[in-house]
Amino acid sequence: METPQRTEALLPVTERTRLRRMRENGSTARADLDAVLAAGFICHLGVLVDGVPMVVPTVYGATADTLYLHGSVASRSLAADPEATVCVTVTLVDSLVLARSVFEHSVNYRCAMVYGVPRVVTDPEQKLEGLRVLSEQAAPGQWDYARQPNRKELAATTLLALALDEASVKISAGPPEDADSPDGELGLWAGELPLVARWGTPVPDPALPEGTAVPAHIAGRAGTPV
Amino acid sequence: METPQRTEALLPVTERTRLRRMRENGSTARADLDAVLAAGFICHLGVLVDGVPMVVPTVYGATADTLYLHGSVASRSLAADPEATVCVTVTLVDSLVLARSVFEHSVNYRCAMVYGVPRVVTDPEQKLEGLRVLSEQAAPGQWDYARQPNRKELAATTLLALALDEASVKISAGPPEDADSPDGELGLWAGELPLVARWGTPVPDPALPEGTAVPAHIAGRAGTPV
Repeated sequence: METPQRTEALLPVTERTRLRRMRENGSTARADLDAVLAAGFICHLGVLVDGVPMVVPTVYGATADTLYLHGSVASRSLAADPEATVCVTVTLVDSLVLARSVFEHSVNYRCAMVYGVPRVVTDPEQKLEGLRVLSEQAAPGQWDYARQPNRKELAATTLLALALDEASVKISAGPPEDADSPDGELGLWAGELPLVARWGTPVPDPALPEGTAVPAHIAGRAGTPV
Repeated sequence: METPQRTEALLPVTERTRLRRMRENGSTARADLDAVLAAGFICHLGVLVDGVPMVVPTVYGATADTLYLHGSVASRSLAADPEATVCVTVTLVDSLVLARSVFEHSVNYRCAMVYGVPRVVTDPEQKLEGLRVLSEQAAPGQWDYARQPNRKELAATTLLALALDEASVKISAGPPEDADSPDGELGLWAGELPLVARWGTPVPDPALPEGTAVPAHIAGRAGTPV
């Protein structure tokens, strides 16, 4: 189980060998993983292309057991090797940790990493449901407000599903750790500088007819945490 | 040259084959790359570990020609193959693009991708300078305010340098693109929901002696954009 912790490195690696099989782990780590995946909407997907790792940002949607991804990003990698394992990383940065010494500086963050072989979702109903999950994660309320995908659009979209079987979560929180070191006597300020991400005021499409009301599910997000 | 643009996919892949050699490209793309790298401080590093891509968040610092990274993240990968190419991706999310149709929804973002074989910096002066760049990118002013690394700390830190030779930048901006489609007649609101990331109010270390003043270079960041 990984609990909130501080580490020496600024944002250290989670080695794959240290990962937990989440289904076998009905613990806080599982709740932490779910919370991190629920809090974000952008992940960084790592795939192999011609033997070289390629890291691309993309939107995702998470259910209790599945991560949905847009497929275009991984299509080349999947075409080359349908059994290739990918890595999906979701990172939320919470604060800079400003210590008395540069060496003890770090970042407080929450990070989830998921490994697996993605499956191309072909069943139209499953695909529609996966796209709904993906859409609602980033833009809740839009699935029912906007025009939903038609058959042609559905066919033009590749959706990938990644089982949340092999995953890890790492959370670092709290103040700097050098208060009790000799550096604590330097008289320097130390603490955290929070990073606050919020949704701003909706900006209407300039092409929108005047007087088109902003729906409540969009207007209500202004000022709320991302 | 890649100019600000909108694309169909939510956050589409930049294929390595479409990358530009930046040194040969004295163009807007180079200025865009520099701007994206200057705006961020967290990257996602993709390395190969036992044949599988691993994507880890880490801090970075950029100069005109070099990206500096903490080495712990890539050390296993480097140890296995010192000539292995890594991918470093920096992503800044600017807004959700809320269109009339779910299919046209997307994300406005700025993204830089850098490929290369990282070099371990061993020369003590170069290492100190690289660490200064890395520290100042995330926490400007702290290098001179906090205690700088001593010899022992310097030896305990692995610093990697990645030349900015092979890189791409992608910027998407602007409103949704379905105003002129039949969906424009649906009477739905459409536009952007900005994501605003700002530095918050500094939180003092609870162990700090009362009355320790927040230095101006930290206090002055509160409320400014990340």
